[in-house]
Amino acid sequence: FAQAGGDIAGVGVDTELISSVPTSETFRSRNFTDEEIKYCNAAPDPNASFAGRWAAKEAVFKALGVASKGAGASMKDIEIVAGQAGPSVQLHGDAASAAGGKTLKVSLSHSDASVVAFAVAQ
Amino acid sequence: FAQAGGDIAGVGVDTELISSVPTSETFRSRNFTDEEIKYCNAAPDPNASFAGRWAAKEAVFKALGVASKGAGASMKDIEIVAGQAGPSVQLHGDAASAAGGKTLKVSLSHSDASVVAFAVAQ
Amino acid sequence: FAQAGGDIAGVGVDTELISSVPTSETFRSRNFTDEEIKYCNAAPDPNASFAGRWAAKEAVFKALGVASKGAGASMKDIEIVAGQAGPSVQLHGDAASAAGGKTLKVSLSHSDASVVAFAVAQ
Repeated sequence: FAQAGGDIAGVGVDTELISSVPTSETFRSRNFTDEEIKYCNAAPDPNASFAGRWAAKEAVFKALGVASKGAGASMKDIEIVAGQAGPSVQLHGDAASAAGGKTLKVSLSHSDASVVAFAVAQ
Repeated sequence: FAQAGGDIAGVGVDTELISSVPTSETFRSRNFTDEEIKYCNAAPDPNASFAGRWAAKEAVFKALGVASKGAGASMKDIEIVAGQAGPSVQLHGDAASAAGGKTLKVSLSHSDASVVAFAVAQ
Repeated sequence: FAQAGGDIAGVGVDTELISSVPTSETFRSRNFTDEEIKYCNAAPDPNASFAGRWAAKEAVFKALGVASKGAGASMKDIEIVAGQAGPSVQLHGDAASAAGGKTLKVSLSHSDASVVAFAVAQ
């Protein structure tokens, strides 16, 4: 009699001004995986894409109910994977442990000025 | 023993600057149903209402995991219905097929500058 | 055989420009509990924190499918409680009645310009 989905464990939302997210190579290599960096650099507006993924990582942290480590290395443990049906979440390291067996869904969006992301853990 | 709700199939979020959503009659008649147009034109700030409903449609597309057709005719297949308990979603045509038996919930909000909408498919 | 979570009863999203939320003592004491006021006044940016909690209350109202009473006293019935795992919702009075036995999850975020909050009732 396994946990049948059912109850929502947590939700997370995050918004950022695109102009407020650092754009240095150092920041990006500390917080994004190689795949994420490749994806964002190929996007029409790389800064907006990096900001969107940053917000998505923050939203996942909130949905898991664990404090993020800000600009720390562990943001890399939450990988946002692009797909034809929209982004999905791949957890590594501490984030995977924190999630237990929970399933995560994420969505993100950006206007010219800001990004917003939403995540739910079930 | 039908699917009892339970698992969330997908979530979708969308944000737009109100000033970035086209306001021409052509755009509106291509993307909004007659009921939606009537509702938005009667709202205190029609441009904000159209932008909110546009974002809601995008959020529903994302929650269904299907690519939207942008400014194409199929935005009309996702109808946002105003109600006293808040907006609900009525699907038509291809969007209804893509949804299968999934239930959709949507919410939307606007500030003076931007709109944000959220949808969940279960 | 109690209702096992499962179906989502409603979702709510709200966004506000921080500059658009009143900052008077009168407004705050009418709409926020003593605990909320204490928490927001101690935050790095009190105006942003009050705006975020205002948006969270609006999002909860929408998730419950009841019309908010705007700047009315009943906003106090939805209390946003800070916690290490993120904010949680405590309902009082009419809001508690409206919720029945539903569980509420909420998340909120602010950029320098705006706040966004999301709530789900299950």
